[in-house]
Amino acid sequence: MQRSDITALIREKQTVLCVGLDTDIERIPDFLKQNYDRPVVEFNRRIIEATRPYCVAYKFNIAFYEARGVSGWQDLGDSLTLVPEGFFTIADAKRGDIGNTSALYARTFFDTYNFDSITVSPYMGSDSLEPFYGYTDKWVIILGLTSNRGSEDVQMQRLANGGYVYEETIRRAAAYGDVDNTMFVVGATKSSYIQRIREIIPDHFLLMPGIGKQGGDLQAVMSDGLNDHYGLLINSSRGIIYAGTGLNFDRAAADVCKTLKEEMQISIYRVDK
Amino acid sequence: MQRSDITALIREKQTVLCVGLDTDIERIPDFLKQNYDRPVVEFNRRIIEATRPYCVAYKFNIAFYEARGVSGWQDLGDSLTLVPEGFFTIADAKRGDIGNTSALYARTFFDTYNFDSITVSPYMGSDSLEPFYGYTDKWVIILGLTSNRGSEDVQMQRLANGGYVYEETIRRAAAYGDVDNTMFVVGATKSSYIQRIREIIPDHFLLMPGIGKQGGDLQAVMSDGLNDHYGLLINSSRGIIYAGTGLNFDRAAADVCKTLKEEMQISIYRVDK
Repeated sequence: MQRSDITALIREKQTVLCVGLDTDIERIPDFLKQNYDRPVVEFNRRIIEATRPYCVAYKFNIAFYEARGVSGWQDLGDSLTLVPEGFFTIADAKRGDIGNTSALYARTFFDTYNFDSITVSPYMGSDSLEPFYGYTDKWVIILGLTSNRGSEDVQMQRLANGGYVYEETIRRAAAYGDVDNTMFVVGATKSSYIQRIREIIPDHFLLMPGIGKQGGDLQAVMSDGLNDHYGLLINSSRGIIYAGTGLNFDRAAADVCKTLKEEMQISIYRVDK
Repeated sequence: MQRSDITALIREKQTVLCVGLDTDIERIPDFLKQNYDRPVVEFNRRIIEATRPYCVAYKFNIAFYEARGVSGWQDLGDSLTLVPEGFFTIADAKRGDIGNTSALYARTFFDTYNFDSITVSPYMGSDSLEPFYGYTDKWVIILGLTSNRGSEDVQMQRLANGGYVYEETIRRAAAYGDVDNTMFVVGATKSSYIQRIREIIPDHFLLMPGIGKQGGDLQAVMSDGLNDHYGLLINSSRGIIYAGTGLNFDRAAADVCKTLKEEMQISIYRVDK
C-alpha cells in the first residue's frame, strides 16, 4: 500500500483511527465460545464489520495469537483475510534481529501472511531492519518513543550531544528507508515530545497507540502530530474491542469508534482546508 | 532451571557450548525432505543426538519456525521435546512490548512451550520485561551489546556521562531481576567490550552468539568472559548444523562441536583449578 493510498483513504473517510485486534480468547463474550468453533475469528469478523466505517487500519497484536500456539496462528491468518481490501494492516510484532533472521520475520509477515506493515525494534540498528525494506509497498514501523514507564530506561537516556536516545534513534532510523516505507511508533502522552519528533521527522507517518476515549487528549495529539499528508494513525485496542461484553459487543465497539472518528474529523477538517 | 544446575552441568561436561537450531527447511539435506513427513523435526532430532555430548544448551531461533506458519510452530514444539532432560533451552525470540503483551509472549514460550529462557529486547524498558520474571526457574536473556554493524546506531550512542547506551542499558537491566534469572546477549567481537561488561556485571551469565571455528577468538573470549560460575554460554548455529550437507550431516556437526568443546575445555580447566 502506498503513502498516497493511505492519505487518500484518510481524506475520504475523515478518520485516522486504527482498530487494534488484541483479541484475547479469555475476554471475548461467552456466547461466541459456546456457539462457534473459531470464536476468535468470529469475534474479529464482527468487530471488523461493525468498525470499518470509522477506521482506516487494523492492527493485529501478534502476541495474542502466538500465545495460543498453532490454533492462534490459524486464527491470525483467517482473521487477516476478513479485513476488506483497501484498509492498512499492521502486524504488531516488535521484531528485530540479525539480518538473516529478520529476513525470515519479513517473510513471515509479508509473504506467509500478507500484512502491509510490521512493527520493529531499533535496538540492533540498521542491518537488523534492512531485510524488511526489500518488499514493494510494504511498511516498516519502528519503535521511536513509547509511553510506558520503562521508556525512561533506554529511550530517555541523555546523550553527550544534549538530546535523548529516542531522538537520535529516530534521526538515524529515518535514513534506513524513506517517508514512503517507514513509520514510527510514538506514544501519545506528552505534547512537547510529539512537537520535538515532528521537528526531526516532519513528513513521516506516526503510529500512536494507547489513545482512549478522552476527546481533549485526542485533539491535542492530532494538533501536534498531523502534517500535510495527515501523517498519523491513532490506535485504540481494548477501549474498542471490549467496550461491550454481551451479545451486542460489536455495536458497542462501533459506538466508540464513531465517537473517536467524529472527534478526529474536527482536526482532519483543518488539514483539508 | 537454576543457576547452580547450569554451573554443575558445565563443570560435568566441560563445555559452555550452545547449539543453535536455526533450522532452515531450504538448507537441510534433500534426503530428509524426500523420506520424512517432518524433515525439520528429523533434522533437529539427528543434530541433537549427535551433538549432545559436547554442549549444555540448545537455542531455537524462533524466526526460522515462525516463517513457515502453522507447520513451523508444530515443528518447533515437537523439536523442543526432543531435547533431553537437563539441557538448558533458549527461545531466541527478541521479544519485548508493553506489559500485557509481554505477559502473553511469556505465556507462549514458558507455558505453551516449556523453554527455560527467552531472549528479549530492552528498548521499551523495565515494565516491558517484568512479565517474563513471573516464572520460577525461567530466565530472561536481555540484548546487551550485539556484534552486527547496526550496533553503532543505538547501542553505541555516546551518553552525557561519558559511557555508551549499551553500558547504561545493561546496568539498569541488571536490576530488573538478579543473577539467578537474568542473562545478557553479548556479541563476542571485541575483547575490550567484554572486559567492560564484566566490570558492570561480573556475576551474570552471558550468551555469546556468532562464534565460529576459530580457536584463537574462542580462547580470548573465554578468557575475558568466564567468571567463577563459568558465566558463559557460547552459541554457534550455522557453523554446526550446516557443517555437512549429505547423509552424514549429523556426524559433521558432531565433529565441529567436539573441536569446540575441546578448545573450551582448556579455559574451563583454568576456572576449575
